[in-house]
Formats: sequence, structure tokens, C-alpha cells
Amino acid sequence: MTRPLSVGVAGLGTVGGGVLKLLRDNAEIVAARAGRPIAVVAVSARDRSKDRGVPVGGLRWYDDPVALAGDAGVDVVVELIGGADGPARALVEAAIAAGKPVVTANKAMLAVHGAALAAAAEAGGVSLAFEAAVAGGIPVIKALREGLAGNRISRIAGILNGTCNYILTQMRERGREFADVLADTQKLGYAEADPSFDIDGIDAAHKLAILAALAFGRPVAFDAVHVEGIRGISALDIGFARELGYRIKLLGLARQTEAGIEARVHPCMVPETAPIARVDGVFNAVVMEGDFVGRVMLEGRGAGAGPTASAVVADLIDLARGRSAPVWGGALSDAPSVPMSAHVGPYYLRLMVVDRPGVIAEVTAALRDLGVSLESMLQRGRAPGEAVPVVLVTHETRESAMRAALDRIGALDAVLEPPTLIRIEAG
Amino acid sequence: MTRPLSVGVAGLGTVGGGVLKLLRDNAEIVAARAGRPIAVVAVSARDRSKDRGVPVGGLRWYDDPVALAGDAGVDVVVELIGGADGPARALVEAAIAAGKPVVTANKAMLAVHGAALAAAAEAGGVSLAFEAAVAGGIPVIKALREGLAGNRISRIAGILNGTCNYILTQMRERGREFADVLADTQKLGYAEADPSFDIDGIDAAHKLAILAALAFGRPVAFDAVHVEGIRGISALDIGFARELGYRIKLLGLARQTEAGIEARVHPCMVPETAPIARVDGVFNAVVMEGDFVGRVMLEGRGAGAGPTASAVVADLIDLARGRSAPVWGGALSDAPSVPMSAHVGPYYLRLMVVDRPGVIAEVTAALRDLGVSLESMLQRGRAPGEAVPVVLVTHETRESAMRAALDRIGALDAVLEPPTLIRIEAG
Repeated sequence: MTRPLSVGVAGLGTVGGGVLKLLRDNAEIVAARAGRPIAVVAVSARDRSKDRGVPVGGLRWYDDPVALAGDAGVDVVVELIGGADGPARALVEAAIAAGKPVVTANKAMLAVHGAALAAAAEAGGVSLAFEAAVAGGIPVIKALREGLAGNRISRIAGILNGTCNYILTQMRERGREFADVLADTQKLGYAEADPSFDIDGIDAAHKLAILAALAFGRPVAFDAVHVEGIRGISALDIGFARELGYRIKLLGLARQTEAGIEARVHPCMVPETAPIARVDGVFNAVVMEGDFVGRVMLEGRGAGAGPTASAVVADLIDLARGRSAPVWGGALSDAPSVPMSAHVGPYYLRLMVVDRPGVIAEVTAALRDLGVSLESMLQRGRAPGEAVPVVLVTHETRESAMRAALDRIGALDAVLEPPTLIRIEAG
Repeated sequence: MTRPLSVGVAGLGTVGGGVLKLLRDNAEIVAARAGRPIAVVAVSARDRSKDRGVPVGGLRWYDDPVALAGDAGVDVVVELIGGADGPARALVEAAIAAGKPVVTANKAMLAVHGAALAAAAEAGGVSLAFEAAVAGGIPVIKALREGLAGNRISRIAGILNGTCNYILTQMRERGREFADVLADTQKLGYAEADPSFDIDGIDAAHKLAILAALAFGRPVAFDAVHVEGIRGISALDIGFARELGYRIKLLGLARQTEAGIEARVHPCMVPETAPIARVDGVFNAVVMEGDFVGRVMLEGRGAGAGPTASAVVADLIDLARGRSAPVWGGALSDAPSVPMSAHVGPYYLRLMVVDRPGVIAEVTAALRDLGVSLESMLQRGRAPGEAVPVVLVTHETRESAMRAALDRIGALDAVLEPPTLIRIEAG
């Protein structure tokens, strides 16, 4: 057996502790599969005294993570600090400059600075590995970049944020409102004190930007991702989804059309028979559609110490074996990004209207005037003179027409709240 | 861009034609991802004149596949002939002896001769790649050997034969009997004229033997796999499964227990809420459980020209990039195989009994005498003096006890047909 691969780990939070634990508990398996031992020799974290469940006493300690990259005994730098900028980015840049391969779980950094970091890494002939950045332990980066490498990928759809999926699952199973479930989820520790990063779709959009870059072979383009979160979903919509045969999921969607590449994160109505509709709780899933392979779905835990450590160590084993792939897959395309206004698909629209004769006619006239064709209309419950929900499902419609129709409908006297719009997706 | 990777393809049936088509249609993508073009330069097949939808005119033609391995212009041999022995095995042995990497889709050959072939390949420092041998286009070999390489795998469960899954799905959806559905499936071309290889579980057992070797790091052991097929499943059992909240699936199951490694293929009752229970029609799926990653499921098309070609080309791209892994994952264990008689789990038992007082007492007495504990009993429909079905569900029971109980129950006068036994699995 050859010389161990010596690893420096920056960031000893949940995931960093998990990586240390995995490399200790499964040292024998890892060495056999990597062809040599993988040993952590240096670490960097803020608090030296914190109990991480794994001893760090014998390791070289750096208060400044950037110094880790300069440690001559470190072969590979593992960045688990997080955040798009600051020390994480400084460390990764320093490691690449020093010619040291990097393993990172940092989706925000890759989504925002991935193009520049990849260019630096490729210029220096340095590996930049990030299986842990998307969907935790599910080997989705490897599947997309290597396992399906022979395919032209036409579409990616993913449940990429476990917090949102957990909240939507709880809303459906318990018939409760978003705010109540969010509060409980925070108490359980599944959502942050400031949950906006998760529930406003930003975390999912970071991951989608990474997947889209890999799938379509182009530089990562986070700014081109259309992002909506799940704050606007009500128990009413969950109920109508059930009645119509759908489930509401926050999906990250990217597809290649003739016009270019569409990338968006928003709540979707997904047919309840679609495999991804059944992925509940904190689980993540990614569907990939290739021209030869057809539809492949991967499902598993998208976060947490164990799954994320599993992905980090898979990258380390690849490095130990000398296995690598071009950062963004190697087939750079110059397809433009398609704006959300050009999206075409069916829509679910839920209005709260005054229950009086003629209201439906006003609403449907607004839709007709903008060329929006209706597939079905539902009005449940009667309450003359009071607010009642009305649900409309459209045929394929262009987003720009739908938006214009919504403006007109929202301005009607009989429409009492801003309309709720949820796009319908095949799953 | 460096020199192309030159490929010789032996076997130009459905899959061989698919590989040629993929390499032609997606040549640009493949070259970008592989770092160099991948070109088929030589082929071997029986019939030179057959239309394969892809021109083979410019390629060197060998009537004898073994001669392909001797072609000095061939860098990699792709074996798509099939069959555990004969020309397929001769070709693979010749290629390894000539120091040429092999890509194969041949599960029968790997299941039966995989240990010897791997030893020869590793002695010669030659790659032996076989993503296409299990679950078609789903990158399950790569996920297990690389993506989850940091984990101790405790269990594998898979729907590994699309024909059986299609038949069981049709039986459930249409309420029809096995023989009728099989006949239709043969007409549609989803089942062979001699379907025993599929429906008796042999094909699934070949694939399970390969997965178990990879998961637990030991030489492939097809003979140690317990195999039962789906011929004994009746519409009656499908109906009871529904009533009890299960679906019947032919699963390949392998797990590591304290006693050793258990590997078995048989029909299972799977809770209908389990993700694998929802995988219908010709789709395949593999669940992998690792100590850090938890439960990961991969799902997609397990057969057909496109998906299988996708897997073959993924292996070729890995070779072109110089990516490789030890054939059986690198961590060889000497855990013994556990015989089926030592299996412990809950059982579903369906009897056809004479509807008269005292029969249930006789049956339950036999179970009690062998220490089999009942969880529930169902008898639907009354027909005094005639045959009625009785269903018994047991708590965790040892297979040897269950078998002994079955012998006693089957010998009772009131029991009119051999009992049907289906093991219950978590999915």
C-alpha cells in the first residue's frame, strides 16, 4: 500500500465532524477502496475546545484556514466552512494557487464563483470536487458527470432542499398552515432561526445552478435562475392539489429548449403518480433525462453529517485513486439563458373571490383576452357575498401572458387577495 | 485533443447497435467529456448483411470475435455477445491476456466467472468494466463502487428484472393471472419465447451476485444466491397484498449480518409506502444502505438499446479519461455465505383449505408446534365444504421453522393445494 493521502479539513461543524468520524470508523474500508489510507493531518476551526465527538488532539491546528493550504504536509484541502465569500473562498483560491486539489461542500460559493474557480483550477491542472454540494450523500454529481456522460441531457428536476420538502410534507399530512409548520420545524432544528435561505428557494437555486452547469456543459449561472420559495403556499392549495391528483413540491428545474437553457426554482403541482411526488420528508431526489438513458431518478438524504461526509469521502477516494473529471463536465456550450417570461407550461391559479354571480365570467374574460386557455375550473363551497376560493387550471400558457392575466385579475373588485399561481410540472 | 480511443465491438444485436448509434449521434459530447474522441474501428457479429440502423461498412469485420482482441488497432474490447461461456468468455479472456481493457454488459458471465476474470484482469493490470451488466442505464455500479465508497454497506435491495416487474405490475393493475399476462408480454416482445431465464429469477440472481460482491467486497458467488421466480404468484395473492397494504415485487436482496452474507432473489411483499414498491412496469431500482449515507435509491430503465448503450459508453468515457476502480471494489472480505434456512423475517402464507370448522385450528396448531408466531389471519368469503383461501402473516420467523411448518400444513387433509409462501421485506 502506498503513502497515505494527507488531508487538511477546514471547518469542524456538523459536516466536518462527520468527515473525521467516517475516516476514523471506516478507515479500513476507505483504505481498501482508495488503494491507500486517507488520513486527516491538519484542521482549522474557530473553537479549539468544542467537543466534536472525535479527538482532534494529534492534528496540526490552524486558526486561519488559509494557512492550511500552505501546510506542506497537506495533499488535499477539504473546505467545509460555508458561505459564498470570506474565508471559504480565500482558502479555496489559496489551495488552487498552491496546486492542491480541493474538496468542498459549498454550494453557495460554487453557484456564485464556480466559473472563476473552475477556470483557475483547470488552468492549474488542479481537481475541484464537490459531490457534497448537491443533494448530500446522493451521488448525483458523479451520476451526471460520469454515469450519464454519454447522453445529451434534456432536463433536470430535483427536490433539492430538505427543509422545504419536510415543511410541505407536514402541511399535507397534517393539514396545517405554513407558518405553524415552520415554527415547529425550527423547534426541531430542521430549519434555521433565519429560514429565508431555505424557504425562499435560494439554497435550492444554488444547487440547481450547479446541476444545470454540469448537465448542459456551460459555466455556472446562478443569476439566471428564477427563484420563488414556499411562503405563499397555503393549506387551501395543498387541499386542492390533493383533489386534482397533484402534490406540491418545491422543485429545481432546468431544461434545454431550442431557445436556450431554462433554470428555475419554484413550487410545482406534480402528478401524485410521478416518482418524485412520492419523495417526502427531508429526502432529496434528482431526476435526469438523457437522450439514450431515458429518465433516471436518484433519491436519498440531502443533508446531515453522515450523508454529507459520505460524499466528501467519495471525492477523497476518487482523488486517492487519481480519478478526476473536468469541473463542469467538459462540454462547454454557449446556449443562452431563457428568461422566465418565455416559460410555457400549464398553470394552477387560486383566487379568493366574492361569492356573487358574474365573478367567474369577469375572471375568465380576462384570461380569454390574454389568450389563456382553461382546462378546468373548480369552486368548492358556497358563501353568498363572502370570500370563496376558485381554482383555475390552464392549458399550456406562456408565462408572460399568465402574468399579464394575473395583473388584470388581481385588479378586479371581486378578487380579494393577490392570486396564488403554481406551475404544473410532469415531475 | 489527443488520439481517439479505438474500440472493437463484439456483438451487434440491439445493444451493440445502440452503442454504435450513441457514439455516432453524440460524438461531440462524448469527445468533450472523454477528453478525446471515442471511435469504433472494428466489429464482430454473425450476420454482415443485417440492417442495424447504423452503417458498419467502414469498420474492420471479424467473423471470430476472439480475433477482435488481436487487432493491433483496437484499444478497448466491448463484449456484447452474451452468455456465461462460449465466444463471450473466450473473447474477454483473450482481451485480458492481450492487456486490453474490456467493457461488458454480460451479467451471466460475470456472475459465473467474475472471480476468475477479475483475478486475471487485476494480475494483468487491465480494466474490466461492467456498468451495463446491472440495471441498464442506471449508474448503480458506479454509485456503489465510487459514490458510496466511504460506507460500510449493510443491505442492497433491487428490482433487477424488468420483465418480472412488468408482469407483476400488469397483474396488479388488470387483476389478471400470471399465465395470461406472460402470454401478452411475450407477444409485446418484453419476454422471451423461453421466459424461464427472467421469470424464474436467474437473470436477477446474476445481477444480485454482482451487486453483493461489490457491496460487501468479496468474490462474486452466484451459487450462494437463493433463487425463486414469480410463476407461483396468483391474482389471489396480488389481491391479498393490496388488502394488507403491500405490493408484490421480485426483489434481489443481499445483506451483511453477523453470521455472514445473505443473498436471495424471490417474490416479496413490500409495504406500499416503500419507495421501491412504487417502481412499476419495466423500470428497475436499487436501494443501497450505507452506515453514513443512509438509504439511497436509484431508479430507471434496466434494459433496452438506449439505456444499455448509455452504460457501455459511460465505461468507455471512464477508460478514455483513465478513471478506474478495482473490479470488485477493492475490499475483499471472507465473510461466509448464509444459507437460506437461516433467514429470519416475517412471512405471508396463503392456503387453499376446505371451508369447515376446525381447519384453522389444525393449521395454527402446526405453526405453534414449530414456534411460528402469528401476527394476523384473514379468511375472506365463505363456501361451506368448498375451497377458500386463508392468509396468515407471521412475526419474525426462521426460514427452517417456516419450511417445517409448511410441510406439516401441506400434509393436512383440509389443505387442498401446496401453500404459497411470500416473504415480507421492508423495501
